[in-house]
Amino acid sequence: METIGFIGIGNLGYPIAENLLKAGYKVKIYNRTRVKALPLEAQGAVLVNSPEEAAEKGGIVLTLVSDDAAITSIAGDAFAAALGNGGIHVSLSTISPDTARVLAAHHKEYGVHYVGAPIFARPEAAAAKVGNAVISGNAAAKERIKPLLEAGFAKRVFDLGEDEGNANVLKLIGNFMIAGAIEMMAEGFALAEKNGLEVKAVYEMLTSTLFASPVFSGYGAMIVDRKYNVPSFSAALGLKDMNLVLQTASRSHTPMPLANLVQSRLTTVVAKNEIPEADWVALASGAFKDAGI
Amino acid sequence: METIGFIGIGNLGYPIAENLLKAGYKVKIYNRTRVKALPLEAQGAVLVNSPEEAAEKGGIVLTLVSDDAAITSIAGDAFAAALGNGGIHVSLSTISPDTARVLAAHHKEYGVHYVGAPIFARPEAAAAKVGNAVISGNAAAKERIKPLLEAGFAKRVFDLGEDEGNANVLKLIGNFMIAGAIEMMAEGFALAEKNGLEVKAVYEMLTSTLFASPVFSGYGAMIVDRKYNVPSFSAALGLKDMNLVLQTASRSHTPMPLANLVQSRLTTVVAKNEIPEADWVALASGAFKDAGI
Repeated sequence: METIGFIGIGNLGYPIAENLLKAGYKVKIYNRTRVKALPLEAQGAVLVNSPEEAAEKGGIVLTLVSDDAAITSIAGDAFAAALGNGGIHVSLSTISPDTARVLAAHHKEYGVHYVGAPIFARPEAAAAKVGNAVISGNAAAKERIKPLLEAGFAKRVFDLGEDEGNANVLKLIGNFMIAGAIEMMAEGFALAEKNGLEVKAVYEMLTSTLFASPVFSGYGAMIVDRKYNVPSFSAALGLKDMNLVLQTASRSHTPMPLANLVQSRLTTVVAKNEIPEADWVALASGAFKDAGI
Repeated sequence: METIGFIGIGNLGYPIAENLLKAGYKVKIYNRTRVKALPLEAQGAVLVNSPEEAAEKGGIVLTLVSDDAAITSIAGDAFAAALGNGGIHVSLSTISPDTARVLAAHHKEYGVHYVGAPIFARPEAAAAKVGNAVISGNAAAKERIKPLLEAGFAKRVFDLGEDEGNANVLKLIGNFMIAGAIEMMAEGFALAEKNGLEVKAVYEMLTSTLFASPVFSGYGAMIVDRKYNVPSFSAALGLKDMNLVLQTASRSHTPMPLANLVQSRLTTVVAKNEIPEADWVALASGAFKDAGI
C-alpha cells in the first residue's frame, strides 16, 4: 500500500496516524517531539527527522499542527519541493482561511496541490473513525485523498468546492457554533440553578428533545457536572480558534457579537488560569461565576 | 368521556383543542374572539361565553393565552370558584414563573391545583402530537392530566417537580436557547456568505453532523432562505418571551449576555417592523444586516 507522510502527533494526530497504520498504509511520521511518536514506531511507522523527509515525490502528506505559525514553518520551500509535481499536502489543522490560500498558492509553484481538510472530531471520535471531514481544493486531489480521510478518522466527507480556504471557513463557523452552544447552555443552566431547578433534569429534557445533538449532549453533560478539565481540546486552542473566527470576521467585515462574547469568556479562562488543564468547555464557567455560583 | 374546558384558540390552541375533540373528549371552549372557535363547534365543541363557564366543578380546564396579563385576567376568583375543590387548571402558556406561583397560591384557596405545563411545540408539531410537555405542580394533579396532554399535543411529558413555576423556568430556558441557536446560525451563515461559501452547503454539513437537531435543521432552513415571515410564532411573542427570560434572570441575579443580545435583536425586528408578519426567526436578520448583506 501507498506510503503516506504524517506530520504532527498530538491528541488528535496520534489516533489518526494509528488508524492509518491499522488500515495497512505505510506511514512516515515527523513530530517535533520525537518521543511521542515512539509507540507508533512500534506499530510499524517510520520516524523521520524533518518535514521534507516525510514526503515522497508525487505522494501525500497529512499535517495536523496547532496553529498558523506551525504550519507555515513546516510547509515551506523544502517541503513543497520534496512533495514535487503531483504531490498533495492535506492540511488537517484549524488555521486561518487566508493562510490556507497563501499556502495553496505557494505549493502550486511546485506542482503540489494543497487540500484544506480541517477535522471535525474530538480525539475519541477520530479514533473510532466517526469524525467528519470538510475538504476544499483541486477536484482530482480531493478524490485521491478521500479514502485516506475515511481510513484515518472520517465517517463522512463534505466537499466545499475548489477554493482551498473554504474548508477552514466552515471549520471556524463550526467551532464558533460549538462555543456558542456552550455559552447558551451555561447561561440557561445558571438560570435554572438560580431558580431552584435541578440542572440535570433541565439538561435531560433539552438534550432529548429540541437539542438532541452530539454537541449539546456531550458538552452539556460536562457543564452539568462542571467538569472542565477533560481536556481533549484545551482552552488555549479554543481561544486560538475564536481569535481566528474574529480575525476572519474582521477581514470580511462581519460583525459577530456572540463570537466576541465567547472569545472574551475563553480569554478570561486562559488569563485567570484557575482551572488546571482546562478544556475549552471551561468557557461555561463564565456565566456561572458571573451569577455568583 | 370527561368534559374538558379549553380557553384560548390561537395558532397553537386550535390544533390542541381539535385533537382533544378527535380523541373523544367533550370540550367546552372559551375564546375572546368567538368566531375563531366556530369550526371547532362544528366538530362538536360547546362554545361558552366566559372563562368560568368553561369550568366544571372538580374538572379540568386548559388555558393557552398570549401573556401574563391575559392569564391573570382569566384565572381570577370566578374562574377558581367555578373549578372548585379538586379542580385543576392546566396552564399551557409561556408566562413568568412568578405569575405561575402567584396563580397557584391563589387557586389553592379554592382547593384548585394549578399545574404549569408550557408547551414545547410549534403548531404543526402540536397538531401531529409530537410536541413536548414540561409539567410542574401537585403530583396527583399531574398524574390526572397526563393523558390529556398526550391526547392534545405531547409525545413526551417531562416532570419538573412540585413547584408550579419550575415548568415555566424550563420553558423560558428552552426558548432562550432556540433564540441563541438562531443568532448563532445567523452569525455563522453571514460569515460564510461574506467569505464566498455556499450557505446551503454550510447549513447541510452542520445540521447533518454536530447540530443534527430539530431546532437547527428547522430554523436553519428558514435562515438559509431568509424566509422570515412564516409566522407560526411571531416576533412579538418571541420578544415577550425574551423579556420574561431577562425579567426572570434579573430577579434571580443571573447575568445572561446572550439573552440580552437576542432580546435586542427581536426588539429591533419589532421596532423597525420592516418584515410583514415576521416570525421570531427574523431575529436572524440582525446579523446579516449588520454585515451589509
